[in-house]
Order: sequence, then C-alpha cells, then structure tokens
Amino acid sequence: MTGAALTADERRDWLRLRRTENVGAVTFHQLLDRYGGAGRALAALPDLTARGGRTAPLAIPSAADAAREMAAGEALGARLICACEADFPPLLAALDPAPPILWALGRADLFQGPAIGIVGARIASAAGQRFARGLAQDAGEAGYVVVSGMARGIDAAAHEGSLATGSIAVLAGGIDDVFPPENQGLYERLAAEGCVVSESPPGFRARARDFPRRNRLISGLAQAVVVVEAEMRSGSLVTARLAAEQGREVLAVPGSPLDPRAKGTNDLIRQGAAICEGFDDVLRALGAPGALREPDAHDPYLPDDGADAASVELRDRVAALLSPTPTPRDELVRLTSAPVAAVNAALTELALAGRAELLPGGLAVAAGT
Amino acid sequence: MTGAALTADERRDWLRLRRTENVGAVTFHQLLDRYGGAGRALAALPDLTARGGRTAPLAIPSAADAAREMAAGEALGARLICACEADFPPLLAALDPAPPILWALGRADLFQGPAIGIVGARIASAAGQRFARGLAQDAGEAGYVVVSGMARGIDAAAHEGSLATGSIAVLAGGIDDVFPPENQGLYERLAAEGCVVSESPPGFRARARDFPRRNRLISGLAQAVVVVEAEMRSGSLVTARLAAEQGREVLAVPGSPLDPRAKGTNDLIRQGAAICEGFDDVLRALGAPGALREPDAHDPYLPDDGADAASVELRDRVAALLSPTPTPRDELVRLTSAPVAAVNAALTELALAGRAELLPGGLAVAAGT
Repeated sequence: MTGAALTADERRDWLRLRRTENVGAVTFHQLLDRYGGAGRALAALPDLTARGGRTAPLAIPSAADAAREMAAGEALGARLICACEADFPPLLAALDPAPPILWALGRADLFQGPAIGIVGARIASAAGQRFARGLAQDAGEAGYVVVSGMARGIDAAAHEGSLATGSIAVLAGGIDDVFPPENQGLYERLAAEGCVVSESPPGFRARARDFPRRNRLISGLAQAVVVVEAEMRSGSLVTARLAAEQGREVLAVPGSPLDPRAKGTNDLIRQGAAICEGFDDVLRALGAPGALREPDAHDPYLPDDGADAASVELRDRVAALLSPTPTPRDELVRLTSAPVAAVNAALTELALAGRAELLPGGLAVAAGT
Repeated sequence: MTGAALTADERRDWLRLRRTENVGAVTFHQLLDRYGGAGRALAALPDLTARGGRTAPLAIPSAADAAREMAAGEALGARLICACEADFPPLLAALDPAPPILWALGRADLFQGPAIGIVGARIASAAGQRFARGLAQDAGEAGYVVVSGMARGIDAAAHEGSLATGSIAVLAGGIDDVFPPENQGLYERLAAEGCVVSESPPGFRARARDFPRRNRLISGLAQAVVVVEAEMRSGSLVTARLAAEQGREVLAVPGSPLDPRAKGTNDLIRQGAAICEGFDDVLRALGAPGALREPDAHDPYLPDDGADAASVELRDRVAALLSPTPTPRDELVRLTSAPVAAVNAALTELALAGRAELLPGGLAVAAGT
C-alpha cells in the first residue's frame, strides 16, 4: 500500500473521506477497498448511508474545508502524509487498520529508524522520571528513535532524554495543541529537532476520548513499548494493550508493591510483559521474544539394573571425573557406561573416604577442592 | 518412610551415623538403604572406607558422644526427630534426600500445617520489612505457618508478623545458636510460641558454609517461598533455587531497577518466579501453578467467500447483536451465519449511519451507548 504518489486532488479526497462523520480508520480502508479510491467512496457515501438506515445526510467536509485544513497545517510548517505514501511511517502502515492520514511537524525522516515507545504516569516519581530519561538516552545511543506522548512526567522525561538523538511526540489534539502548557519549551524543541505527529486536524483541542487513538499511534510507531510507571486502569496500560494487539513487544519496569505507581507495571509483567531494568532488556525482547526463560536441563536417570559390584577401577574413574563443579550422577553413569547402582556405590565410598561430596539433586563434587 | 517408632538405641545409631565424618544426607540414606539400618551401616563403615581408598579410619562418634548430644538438646527442651518418625515434617520427609535428623525446640505441631517461607535481605529497606511483616500476618490469618531463617531484616520481620499464628525459625547453627545477638528476644518468643529447628548439634556455631543447608530446610519446610528483597548472588536466591529444585513454588517481590535490593527479586521474576504483591499471589501460585497468564483468544476469521449483498435483515440482526462491549467481527459472523464480506458491509453501513463504531482489531460496538 506504500509508495503511491497522490495528486493534490486525491490527497484532498483522502482528507475529506477521513474527516467524514462516522468514518474511522477501519471504515476508511473498507470504503477505499470497496470503491477503489477516496473520490469514488465519497460519491457513494450518501447512498450507503441511506442503506444503513439513516435519514439525515452524513456530514462530509467540502473540498474547501479540506483545503482549509491543508493550509492550516502547512502554515504551521507541517506536512500531511497519507498511508499509501512512501514517507508514511512503515510501522504504522503495517497496522490493520493503518491510520489513513498523519500530520507531521519536523523530521519525518525519524519514521524510518527503529523506534521504541516509552510511556508512563503523568504524576511520576522522580526516580521514574530519571529512569525514563536514562532509558531514552541509552535507546538513542543505540540508534533507536524514542516515541512518547508529550504528557507530564514519564513522557516528558523520555522526550528530554532523546531530543539529541531522535524523539517523536504523538499528540491527541492537533500538531499545535500543546498540553500541558509547561511543555511549551519541550514542544518547540521537538518540532525543531525531533518530530511532532497527530491524526487530528491542526487547531483541534484534544478531548479525553481522543487519547486511546493517540496511544495506538505511539505503540504503532514503535517496535517495542516500555511502560515505566503506571497505576491500574491508566492510559499507559491502554498503550501496552494496543502494542500487544499490534504484535509489538511490551516491557514494563517493575516496582515495589507498596508503590501504587508500580501496580500497573507489575500487573503487565504478570500478564507476560518482559521486565525492563534497562535498555539491554529492550534489545533482548526485540532480538529473542519469549526466549527469556532458561529451561531446566535434567535428564532422567538411567534405569537401575541392580548391579552391586563397585570395582576399584570404576571408583577411580568416577573420582577422576569429579571436579569442584557439581556433576550430575547420570552424567557419571553415562561417561563411565557403568550401572547406576555401581556408580552410586562408588560415590558413597568416595564420600566416606572424603574424596567426594554428595549434594542434593543427584550431584557430586570432588571434596577438598 | 514416616511413621516408624525408633528404639532409644536406634535413635542413637541414627544420630551417630548422621554425625559420622563425610556422611551427608545423600550418603546417609544410601547407607540406610544398602544395609537396612543405621546400626548395620555403622558396622560396615570401616571396610567401606578402606575400599574407598582411604587409609585413616573414619571419625565415627561413639555411643557416648551421641548420648551427650541427646542430653544437651534435651536440656534445652528440644527434641530430636528422625526422618522416619511420624512427627517429622511431612514436607521435609518428601525431599530427596530428606534431612536424616532434626532438632526441634517448641511447637513441633506447626510442622503439620501448610507453610510458606519468607526470606530476604539482611540489610533490608524499611518498606521491605514492612511488606514482609504484613505478608506474614496475612499468611497466618489464612492458616499458613511462616518459615524463615531468623536473620536480620526480612527474616526477623517475617517472624514478627507470624509469631501470633505460627512461626518456624530454621538455624544454621545449633538450636541455641542465637545470631545476630539483637534477635535474642525474638528467639525466646519463637522457642516459646513458635518453633526453632536445626540439623546441627546443640552448641554448634554456624559457619558461612552451613547456610545453604539451612536454606534448603527453609524451602523444604514450605509449599512456597517468597523472596522479599535480595541483591544479586545473595543467600535468598540460593533458597529460591533450592525451592525450585524441591518443586516448591517460588515467588518474588518486584522492585525498582534503581534499587539494588530488587535486582535479585526482579531477576527471579525474569527466570519464571511468580510476582508477589501480597498473600493472594501466594494462594494463586499454590492453587494454579503456571496458570497466571491469560492467553489471547483470537480465532482466525472465517474465509471470505466474496459475497457482497448486505441485506436489510442482516444489517438489523448485526445491529441487534452489538452492545457497548466490543464484539469481535468473527463472533458476529458466527452468530449470523452470514458471509464475512456481508457482515463487513453491514458494519460499514451501520458505522456510517452512526449506529456502530468500528474499532481496531476487528471489534465493533454499538454507537451512542
């Protein structure tokens, strides 16, 4: 779907269709697929709507409305990028559904790099903010762009840590909707040195219900999302859930059960999120998903054939095989090709002689080492 | 192996065999199995030792030595319990190898109850100690005995929280080896209201190398072990490893990556230990080991058969199936027995009419609810 070049008219039709009442991303792509183009979909809308059982006509923005939004964004120095275009973030294009359009202010080239999301509580602890800043720095040094939501607390710290290397802020309102006000300076640096993106029209003020869509964009722009601090039922957990649905890695920073800001992250770990104690954990999650546990390697013992004769020769061979590293009895059995009972008897005698020490779990070590 | 009644002579022979130079728990049980009794094993030792390649005779305690240890323990008010006896802790008896003998001072009846181990750092944070105390209280209220090691920090807090309901202290030295000295008062309360146990002879001062055996007893006496705070390479991690080897549940309390005392517990969680944020987590681990993750239940969509006719009837049936709870598209397909494309078309039309909202991930909700 990427790589197409749109004419100015086609771009305007994409914007009109996207801004049409009741047309979400899913509906947008279904209409595009069904009618083969945004213009034809716009033409079919009135009839479709009537068949849906609605009598009032659908609010479809006019060409002039779309031109006004284009002009407003361009006046801010931003660009509209459609999902079918080459500049559209590849990770977002891979989503089902992809966001149909995106306003981008600043370095759109950052979309091409590997990226991780760092999100978390607005009312974050100093330690949490320090951790987020350090994680973002480490990510940047490793060549990863950092994506966050420019909120107070963890988000702001993540941007601060990554401004020098590559930072993308995703806004729920328009690309000019700076909130909270104290992030004005951060916003200006992000627009100049990093990138600010939004699905909303310029001038649009974010409402509470616009944040899940913003969160979906944060995780969608990243290969992995790290949640640094989060209370239960917080927006960061929504981002984590969306990331998991998008097939992106989810990591969470653990914290004390006595800290309510760790409840959400600990719960994520409980549900299968990888533990994040530093950027190495992100790299590990991206490199080898699901390979974090080391399986126990414990072969069952060979069957006991009841032999009882522990020869001097076997005893000395067993003694020679022992070292300060605990050795499983079955390994001794295998290496000596002797019956289990004979090896056991040899070990017992070596232990009594102070030449071996028998450990729980069928292990033996050389004594006096 | 439990339930036998030992004569005074047999008990003395068990003690002598256990205290024989180079006879650990593994060797003890192998000798007992091979010779059918501690007395006969003692008689066979000199010959066995010579065959093991040792010329100096083995140091076997005399009957008088054993009688002295018996008298010393009984003078403290303690009892010697052998692994074959009915009073021996059933969870310890189930170990391979079981500790052959145990000195117990206080309420041996506590061995019969369900029990959890709570262990952790000696130099523990105030928060960690508070958590351990609360966890021990909650365990006690739920009818669980608490087992710990009577060390400073987490161990002491765990005992304090469970003295009123049932607390077992496992010592590396003899049952009279109070360490650290500031735990003298706690020790006296444990001996009076709870239970103090040890594998070592009375009067024995613990050395560093005696602690792994002590740790094995803590986990062995418990169905589950919770590690509250632990630095990397600390004794609590040894206890956790031993617990896992014994088939006991291992839980760990998460903590901030910036707290070195959380490094060990976070690492345990990383290796598969269950997260412990409270006693409910212990109960969950005991009830349903390994069932903590909720699997994603996402059926693949039914194959698209290309149909395009969305009837009014189907649209209304789809509308009736929608609710404020997101409903998967494949569920609508199944419930309507209609082709995927027809359901998609119906959903698109309902969305355009403002009667449905289409969500990412193939979900739909009733609009305006």
